Amino acid sequence: MKSYKIALLPGDGIGRDVTDAAWAVLEKTARSSGFSLEAARFPWSCDYYLENGSMMPADGIDTLRSFDAILLGAVGWPRKVPDSVSLHGLLLPIRKAFVQYANIRPHKLLPGVQGPLRSQDFDILCIRENTEGEYSGAGGRVHQGTDGEVAVETSIFTRKGVERILRFGFEQARARRGKLSSVTKSNAQKYSMVFWDEITHRLSTEYPDVEVTSYHIDAMAARMVMAPESLDVVVASNLFGDILTDLGAAIQGGLGFAASANINPDRSAPSMFEPVHGSAPDIAHLGIANPIAAIWSGAMMLEHLGEAAAAGRIMAAIEATTARGIGAIPGKDKTDAITASVLSALD
Amino acid sequence: MKSYKIALLPGDGIGRDVTDAAWAVLEKTARSSGFSLEAARFPWSCDYYLENGSMMPADGIDTLRSFDAILLGAVGWPRKVPDSVSLHGLLLPIRKAFVQYANIRPHKLLPGVQGPLRSQDFDILCIRENTEGEYSGAGGRVHQGTDGEVAVETSIFTRKGVERILRFGFEQARARRGKLSSVTKSNAQKYSMVFWDEITHRLSTEYPDVEVTSYHIDAMAARMVMAPESLDVVVASNLFGDILTDLGAAIQGGLGFAASANINPDRSAPSMFEPVHGSAPDIAHLGIANPIAAIWSGAMMLEHLGEAAAAGRIMAAIEATTARGIGAIPGKDKTDAITASVLSALD
Ligand SMILES: CC(C)[C@H](C(=O)O)[C@@H](O)C(=O)O
Ligand SMILES: CC(C)[C@H](C(=O)O)[C@@H](O)C(=O)O
Repeated sequence: MKSYKIALLPGDGIGRDVTDAAWAVLEKTARSSGFSLEAARFPWSCDYYLENGSMMPADGIDTLRSFDAILLGAVGWPRKVPDSVSLHGLLLPIRKAFVQYANIRPHKLLPGVQGPLRSQDFDILCIRENTEGEYSGAGGRVHQGTDGEVAVETSIFTRKGVERILRFGFEQARARRGKLSSVTKSNAQKYSMVFWDEITHRLSTEYPDVEVTSYHIDAMAARMVMAPESLDVVVASNLFGDILTDLGAAIQGGLGFAASANINPDRSAPSMFEPVHGSAPDIAHLGIANPIAAIWSGAMMLEHLGEAAAAGRIMAAIEATTARGIGAIPGKDKTDAITASVLSALD
Repeated sequence: MKSYKIALLPGDGIGRDVTDAAWAVLEKTARSSGFSLEAARFPWSCDYYLENGSMMPADGIDTLRSFDAILLGAVGWPRKVPDSVSLHGLLLPIRKAFVQYANIRPHKLLPGVQGPLRSQDFDILCIRENTEGEYSGAGGRVHQGTDGEVAVETSIFTRKGVERILRFGFEQARARRGKLSSVTKSNAQKYSMVFWDEITHRLSTEYPDVEVTSYHIDAMAARMVMAPESLDVVVASNLFGDILTDLGAAIQGGLGFAASANINPDRSAPSMFEPVHGSAPDIAHLGIANPIAAIWSGAMMLEHLGEAAAAGRIMAAIEATTARGIGAIPGKDKTDAITASVLSALD
């Protein structure tokens, strides 16, 4: 029997609640699908930081490297540890160290879910660059604390980094409806974003079957609200992808429904799967977090591991659940009730 | 009789169409309000660039300095001149040279306008930093054209720049419903955005009557769609403000309804008023651009010049127009018909 080694990183706040839920669904699916999942759970989190002075052990990355995939809940608890410390100590280094350069986030409405838009008919796949750009972490502050203080933050884009994410976008568009939207802000950022546009333009000749359009980030944000049905695959930089995917989560009914995969397409290191939502400390451990985004992320993990049929079964169980109205309305159902419904729909 | 000298910069594409409309409304309003408006029209645009090799003359900024205000249509025509050239040659230098550090954009639904959201009940004032940050224009490219090419783009935030826009935000919040939302991405950008958050936090003690909340840009984008009614004044950096205000335009029914003011609060140089929309070359001079955003921007100009009653009359005329369904549905009415309706509602 095939077996996959999964590293569980529940992280902080509701990250723990939803990881438990996703894991229950994954285990049951595995049992009836003829493969097994073996989990190792790591307590790396803000609490861990308060005890140990770092978000993960010095050999944390090495430890994770031997796993087939990572399932993450959420990281961050600002009242305990500044986000700029917790995220740069756990989530962001994993994405970078394991070259998970493609962050994939599907945005569509699950049956029974009412989004905030009148328009209900869209199916967008956002692809976000996940390792460089505006999240390079380069910068500094001078004259700190004085009137003359200056803070700089430098976005770094490499040809390799931009080319590979755009190629990934073109491939995804080819496998879907053949439309790629590339998002920049080249009218205002004339180095990084003009560079991105140039590479988009050059690659487009290699994919004559893909219709590619460039948008500015502001226009794309408006389009996702005004005409989401016009979009297919959207590819964007680290920051722009971050913003657009929260917007995507919003139009699909809320962050409780937004799944994501941090993919290393070369499979030279494990990929990581996580709901788009954060740790939501205010509702942590109250049993009211919606686990659907985490369960959906688990399905994306199985798909990545080559268990597409099992992934499909989970998606069908999620859809059966929301179609019955369970988990479909933010705040209405308890985590356990939603999980139980997905589990029973798997039978 | 009071008289104001206005520099008209119609710019490109529909910028010309809507500036004409706004000017007609402004002139009529002035006549019946006991002041006069004197216009000088400057043809600075992409066409001007093609003829003269620059977007404006070398002494363009000096020329504009003697005016009481600037009314701008839109700048950019990518097929003629790259946006990164046209915008950096005209729009952005004016904002910076005249220290128009506060870009103000109101987002609410005009009567008769149906937004894309189910929620129709919001009144948001976005305040965008307009002179530095992610639009600093600092950066470069190395190893150009090779596999090893790297592009960097540096955001520069100064204490003075951040403090003054935040103060402006606090003051606006105080004059409205007392709620200020400050938008950053301090969990990922640990220099610039942490700096901004620190200054927000420090200033908040000076404004105990204002309730201030910090949001990450991704969460704010989602909130504008999920719960826009929860927002009052939103203050953000140059780039984040740009994105949020296009989103604001979207939820208020489209870019045809989004007005803006580039304000120099110290009045040491003219302020500039412009619709949020771009030049839309594909529909230029077809007579179908919606002039409401430009007319509304004209009202903001009168308000800034101290003619609040006249500004109010224009707003009432816009509202009477859209309430009758004219100009309320994107694409339905011609520029002239909408302008005529606003003009006649002024009587
Ligand atoms: C927590 C934060 C650093 C993270 C990001 O911006 O990447 C999150 O918002 C996400 O989208 O995964
Ligand atoms: C044209 C562009 C440079 C400009 C900006 O981003 O500032 C526009 O989008 C705006 O919002 O005024």
